[in-house]
Amino acid sequence: MYRPILRQSAKQLSCAARPAAIRGYAAHTTPQQFNWEDPLNSASLLTEEELAISETAEAYCQERMLPRVLQAYRDEHYDKKILEEMGELGLLGATIKGYDCAGVSNVASGLITKAVERVDSGYRSGMSVQSSLVMGGIDEFGTQEQKDKFLPKMAKGKLLGAFGLTEPNHGSDPGSMETTAKPHPTKKGYLSLSGAKTWITNSPIADVLLVWAKYHETGKIRGFLVERSECPPGTLETPPIKNKNGLRASLTGMIQLDECPVPAANMFPDVEGLRGPFTCLNSARFGIAWGTIGALEDCIARTRTYALERKQFKGNPIAKYQLVQKKLADATTDAAFGTLAAIQVGRLKDKGEAAPEMISMIKRQNCDRALFNSRILQEVFGGNAVSDEYGIGRHVANLFVTQTYEGQSDIHSLILGRAITGLQAFV
Amino acid sequence: MYRPILRQSAKQLSCAARPAAIRGYAAHTTPQQFNWEDPLNSASLLTEEELAISETAEAYCQERMLPRVLQAYRDEHYDKKILEEMGELGLLGATIKGYDCAGVSNVASGLITKAVERVDSGYRSGMSVQSSLVMGGIDEFGTQEQKDKFLPKMAKGKLLGAFGLTEPNHGSDPGSMETTAKPHPTKKGYLSLSGAKTWITNSPIADVLLVWAKYHETGKIRGFLVERSECPPGTLETPPIKNKNGLRASLTGMIQLDECPVPAANMFPDVEGLRGPFTCLNSARFGIAWGTIGALEDCIARTRTYALERKQFKGNPIAKYQLVQKKLADATTDAAFGTLAAIQVGRLKDKGEAAPEMISMIKRQNCDRALFNSRILQEVFGGNAVSDEYGIGRHVANLFVTQTYEGQSDIHSLILGRAITGLQAFV
Amino acid sequence: MYRPILRQSAKQLSCAARPAAIRGYAAHTTPQQFNWEDPLNSASLLTEEELAISETAEAYCQERMLPRVLQAYRDEHYDKKILEEMGELGLLGATIKGYDCAGVSNVASGLITKAVERVDSGYRSGMSVQSSLVMGGIDEFGTQEQKDKFLPKMAKGKLLGAFGLTEPNHGSDPGSMETTAKPHPTKKGYLSLSGAKTWITNSPIADVLLVWAKYHETGKIRGFLVERSECPPGTLETPPIKNKNGLRASLTGMIQLDECPVPAANMFPDVEGLRGPFTCLNSARFGIAWGTIGALEDCIARTRTYALERKQFKGNPIAKYQLVQKKLADATTDAAFGTLAAIQVGRLKDKGEAAPEMISMIKRQNCDRALFNSRILQEVFGGNAVSDEYGIGRHVANLFVTQTYEGQSDIHSLILGRAITGLQAFV
Amino acid sequence: MYRPILRQSAKQLSCAARPAAIRGYAAHTTPQQFNWEDPLNSASLLTEEELAISETAEAYCQERMLPRVLQAYRDEHYDKKILEEMGELGLLGATIKGYDCAGVSNVASGLITKAVERVDSGYRSGMSVQSSLVMGGIDEFGTQEQKDKFLPKMAKGKLLGAFGLTEPNHGSDPGSMETTAKPHPTKKGYLSLSGAKTWITNSPIADVLLVWAKYHETGKIRGFLVERSECPPGTLETPPIKNKNGLRASLTGMIQLDECPVPAANMFPDVEGLRGPFTCLNSARFGIAWGTIGALEDCIARTRTYALERKQFKGNPIAKYQLVQKKLADATTDAAFGTLAAIQVGRLKDKGEAAPEMISMIKRQNCDRALFNSRILQEVFGGNAVSDEYGIGRHVANLFVTQTYEGQSDIHSLILGRAITGLQAFV
Repeated sequence: MYRPILRQSAKQLSCAARPAAIRGYAAHTTPQQFNWEDPLNSASLLTEEELAISETAEAYCQERMLPRVLQAYRDEHYDKKILEEMGELGLLGATIKGYDCAGVSNVASGLITKAVERVDSGYRSGMSVQSSLVMGGIDEFGTQEQKDKFLPKMAKGKLLGAFGLTEPNHGSDPGSMETTAKPHPTKKGYLSLSGAKTWITNSPIADVLLVWAKYHETGKIRGFLVERSECPPGTLETPPIKNKNGLRASLTGMIQLDECPVPAANMFPDVEGLRGPFTCLNSARFGIAWGTIGALEDCIARTRTYALERKQFKGNPIAKYQLVQKKLADATTDAAFGTLAAIQVGRLKDKGEAAPEMISMIKRQNCDRALFNSRILQEVFGGNAVSDEYGIGRHVANLFVTQTYEGQSDIHSLILGRAITGLQAFV
Repeated sequence: MYRPILRQSAKQLSCAARPAAIRGYAAHTTPQQFNWEDPLNSASLLTEEELAISETAEAYCQERMLPRVLQAYRDEHYDKKILEEMGELGLLGATIKGYDCAGVSNVASGLITKAVERVDSGYRSGMSVQSSLVMGGIDEFGTQEQKDKFLPKMAKGKLLGAFGLTEPNHGSDPGSMETTAKPHPTKKGYLSLSGAKTWITNSPIADVLLVWAKYHETGKIRGFLVERSECPPGTLETPPIKNKNGLRASLTGMIQLDECPVPAANMFPDVEGLRGPFTCLNSARFGIAWGTIGALEDCIARTRTYALERKQFKGNPIAKYQLVQKKLADATTDAAFGTLAAIQVGRLKDKGEAAPEMISMIKRQNCDRALFNSRILQEVFGGNAVSDEYGIGRHVANLFVTQTYEGQSDIHSLILGRAITGLQAFV
Repeated sequence: MYRPILRQSAKQLSCAARPAAIRGYAAHTTPQQFNWEDPLNSASLLTEEELAISETAEAYCQERMLPRVLQAYRDEHYDKKILEEMGELGLLGATIKGYDCAGVSNVASGLITKAVERVDSGYRSGMSVQSSLVMGGIDEFGTQEQKDKFLPKMAKGKLLGAFGLTEPNHGSDPGSMETTAKPHPTKKGYLSLSGAKTWITNSPIADVLLVWAKYHETGKIRGFLVERSECPPGTLETPPIKNKNGLRASLTGMIQLDECPVPAANMFPDVEGLRGPFTCLNSARFGIAWGTIGALEDCIARTRTYALERKQFKGNPIAKYQLVQKKLADATTDAAFGTLAAIQVGRLKDKGEAAPEMISMIKRQNCDRALFNSRILQEVFGGNAVSDEYGIGRHVANLFVTQTYEGQSDIHSLILGRAITGLQAFV
Repeated sequence: MYRPILRQSAKQLSCAARPAAIRGYAAHTTPQQFNWEDPLNSASLLTEEELAISETAEAYCQERMLPRVLQAYRDEHYDKKILEEMGELGLLGATIKGYDCAGVSNVASGLITKAVERVDSGYRSGMSVQSSLVMGGIDEFGTQEQKDKFLPKMAKGKLLGAFGLTEPNHGSDPGSMETTAKPHPTKKGYLSLSGAKTWITNSPIADVLLVWAKYHETGKIRGFLVERSECPPGTLETPPIKNKNGLRASLTGMIQLDECPVPAANMFPDVEGLRGPFTCLNSARFGIAWGTIGALEDCIARTRTYALERKQFKGNPIAKYQLVQKKLADATTDAAFGTLAAIQVGRLKDKGEAAPEMISMIKRQNCDRALFNSRILQEVFGGNAVSDEYGIGRHVANLFVTQTYEGQSDIHSLILGRAITGLQAFV
């Protein structure tokens, strides 16, 4: 079902004259030639299908998303039609088999993510929540009824999701959460959810909110699908959080639950404790590892163009200066290495062999290096960097957020440290 | 004239109950005790007068400026009354002798700058332009008439200045500027200025614009005081530049001159070539070296407070974690070292013994380290860093700009490299 | 021919009880488990044959090389039997087809290199010269007679090679070399070579020296196979260079040629200019990209062991401290990413699709990161790091040399910068 | 007593023609000129006397020490006459008042230290032990008899000291030491010391060893002056530790005490616990903060010379390349800032106002930055860096040790972190 759509889109899109920025992987160079956009020829590791998907996604993102992002970022506005458009192209929940989802490889999914974050990390965040955190969670842990009810509409972008784990006082340590699910005092067969979640992407516009709460019977964390349309007034509020420093093209908000009634049938049946949310996060983190490389690649391309065009001191393009070339060489290297690592973990994930620590490793490293290099590249723009029209300042601000969310870099280093030494150092 | 005012203000202010954040240098600790706010006891190097000035400035900035900055930054708004208030306190052009200026030491001036930038680099930029670039330029290079006419009003903040050097195509290389000053075709005793300047702080509100242009007779760069009130319509435009990534609490704009008539009497009499603007910049860079340490110190204080209040993992404040403590130790060290270097160059400057390369050194290093450490400290805030209410994101964004303006960091490294090796590496 | 030998050795070796340090890739963990010795499961990308070769090489290196290295490094001694032993195992010139060479993949060759450098970069240097620089050069550019004459004996380690390119005044810029090859004044059919080469690994013990010199007829660089046994007294001297800071377990020397007669038949037939030596260097650099990861992995293993055994402050192993864990996490990540990049370039090399800039990229990055991380890990040893018995100081000293030879890191960044921007910044 | 000697030496030495390398501070440049050897004109902060002492020390070190160091480092040999020569010049225990010591300021003492470490950190270590750790300890905590007995001979370098604190299992955590002092079973009025100390500079040649041990009566740490000449055979062994990676020009060894009888009169009378050794260490750390800047300055000077002489690519000195100039600019900046910080803490120390954390800060920062920059500068030497004759590799190896001893860098960051946050993070 999906493949024709995707293929067809690809075909349609490929007919249009395309700007140079949309290069995808197909048009790469002859053997033995160095291609700065894919320095270690990662394209050689992709299947034909993956190349086609990447091309479709890149084309959509460059042609449809990119023109919207500058204003959206200025205004802290998120156009929810984006998810619908992505749904039409088959880009949502793309690794899920069935339920009108595309059922593609994890690498293909990573390529989609990269294409989106090449435009903006906020747009990628909006998609990650829908695809990895909510659809992925339902697919992994939901009942058959939950899957049938939610997944097809979510795949089309007709039903929007949000993922409520982080609380105001519990970020790196979600096991201490305070949100609870108790038997509803008046509605039979219903649970009553109370508590507050914060920094929730998409919450203000979400139709279905996957909320994690401590279940009264066991004291353990369970997952609940809260449908906004079913919530009585005053039991669910999702106020937006404004004036953000980054990710301004994505919507962020709180989830405030005040004895919100949720049908027992909307609870995930088996999964208990942190395994549930961490499985979802793992999947989203895998996407972040891909996406941030997309943002970094865009920074490289923008810096290269600027440095070739900007002339100082006797008319030399500043791209000719050693200090500029070193910055480009460093960034390009990290992008190339990060891409290979992401592909490798994707292949292992397809085989069910990706340990969570692998994902910690690539999430942490790719975020850190994308952030580091984007900041260094920004220096090349000199005073002009302060203008938002060059785009690189937006990436820098976004990438800082990616480094801190879904496991702040230091936390992932301690996860890795624990795996390496067998000792935990969190407290 | 000034001193009583300043002293009086200091006295008044010191009567008021002051929030902990306003600590100034006076209330430091007993010998042998380590004070994280002044780790190497730089206060011991200051005179009584300097301590009093610092206290006055810190009090004004914390009490009057700080409450405005959050909204101003969000809205890209600059309240020009700030300069008037600073003028009332005697804080503008403070090192100038006479003309109603305070005539204080360069270190005292640095302390004022630091106090302002502790609040916001944008506010400091607005002040630097007024004090160092324009008033300093007039004091150094102006005729007696120019001084008498402009300095007293500028000292009061009644007349606002802007400094037009950078052009759209000439940032690091101002010697290639294209703005020209020719004899005015119709107005006798007037020159006609044409050209465009960009990234000009305060330009949209400036009353007097110090514009550097190539003089027709010699082809050399000369300085011109352009009075907005005297410019015929259409000859001077100063459109604001909006949607900046940083320094949003300061106004930035262009200066567009189209055969703008300027009286010959408004030209600086003697100074030719880059020596004029570079002398002014030198003075402003000296201020940046001080100011950025103020911003860094504010980041340290904010991070420390956050880390002591934020608890994760069994209720431990995150300030207890090694990875957090190391970040604080690094930042505090750079702030302490940077302060001592700034004091030393200030003392040399008072004696006329500060080489320009010394100022390149402290401007570059203090900007670089303030930026580096503020970014690292921002990580401590985790997801909360994205909220502008914690203030640190604003400093990070501002400090990036300080690193690129008035000599981008790499450019200063080549200035130093030239001084060290005797060889220039710009081209 | 080789394969049985290698396989047999592997079998024999695998019977012996092996110390934990020899783990090879075979004994990896179950899916979904994180293995700190191969964090991103690069073993999953290797063929059975490659795994077997790796195991053989690792076993030889750990059992036979490792016990010699401490004393060798102290004494600046190189045991030339090592090359003979490696020859017996089929580890020399391993990618060459025919001539009694093993004809394995570039990845297999990389694995051998990594095994050797896990012990010591000096031992790897000795091997690289033999395999990549000299045998590789002969195989690529030699006449049939040259190949038949030299390769089989070199493959066995019975004939040792050296590679003479760098001159005292021409390191990063070999195109300016001063060594010349002119018609010999008295011996017909001979050329007369004169000049000096320095920093030549193995030169004091080499039997055949591949010397690059400017050819009188064309002024272009050509390659010459100088056989020590054929050189009249006083025409070839190869004095050792002693008192090195690093790579002390490899021999380094000069090559001094004073009208040394070399048969015209010993000149490479076709290759002219820098293409010849650069092709050889490319191959050696590919090996360095692999080898340095071996050294880094050994540093990780040693640090981990030390940190688990060393207890400070209430009996906690220092492996439990956040600052220690972060160091291990960083190093492990760079080793894992670097391994994947090296495999990818190896696969492309097998297909003839590896651009030289790809090799610049992985040589530079893997050297830089191995050096950086080994230094950071060394800090974990505290005062004990100064003792050579912990081994890590030796790696640190060696890795610095790998960063500077065969293209210093900055030079490779300019090679990459040129490929990215199309502009050269060397002068 | 001292001053005439020192002054006289200064005079004598200043008559001799001096190599350019001996510049001292006196011959600095005119105001407004940038002097790369003292970029922020720290000489302006020194007294005439301090300048003279610095000159004497620099002259001695460059003329007498420097010629010995290359061979000494190769052979791991320490010429104990060096301490005697320094004693003759009045350079030992120079801050102590009386007892034939010079009684100079802490800044003067720092300048001596810097002059010594400009040659070699090992030579500085040998002096630090004598001056700061042992003479300083006796002066601070000894009885009048102890002072009279030991200090004058030590000041002359006729009696050599060692300082025994660190034990094999207790480096960063000396409070857990295992060495004990009990009543001697047979000798009345004697204590019996047993235990082992390691990494003890000068121990193999020391005449008097200041050993810290747990005192039987209180279980608290006390200091004991162990005189080698008085120890019965078999009760004191001081085997050297050889094959060090760094500080090879200083002697290091163990102290093994086996029921060693020490007169009760040789115990420090009052000081108990870690205050005693930490006071001594504080003083030594202050010296390290000065000394490492000397080593860094030597690296800068050597690199600058090399870069000006080494030509690559069309005959350009490599000093002309941007990537080289940036390295020099960075290193010079850190040296200049570090010097100012060391002067400031010295001035506070003279007034009794230097908190221990201030010394942690400058020790840590100056070691870290000297190490970091020396490594970066070493890259400029390319392949030649591996030769010990360029000297920079020796500094790099030494500086790594300075970073780990007398408080490893991370430990000092936690000391600072504790002072900043009020929370300790050691366990």
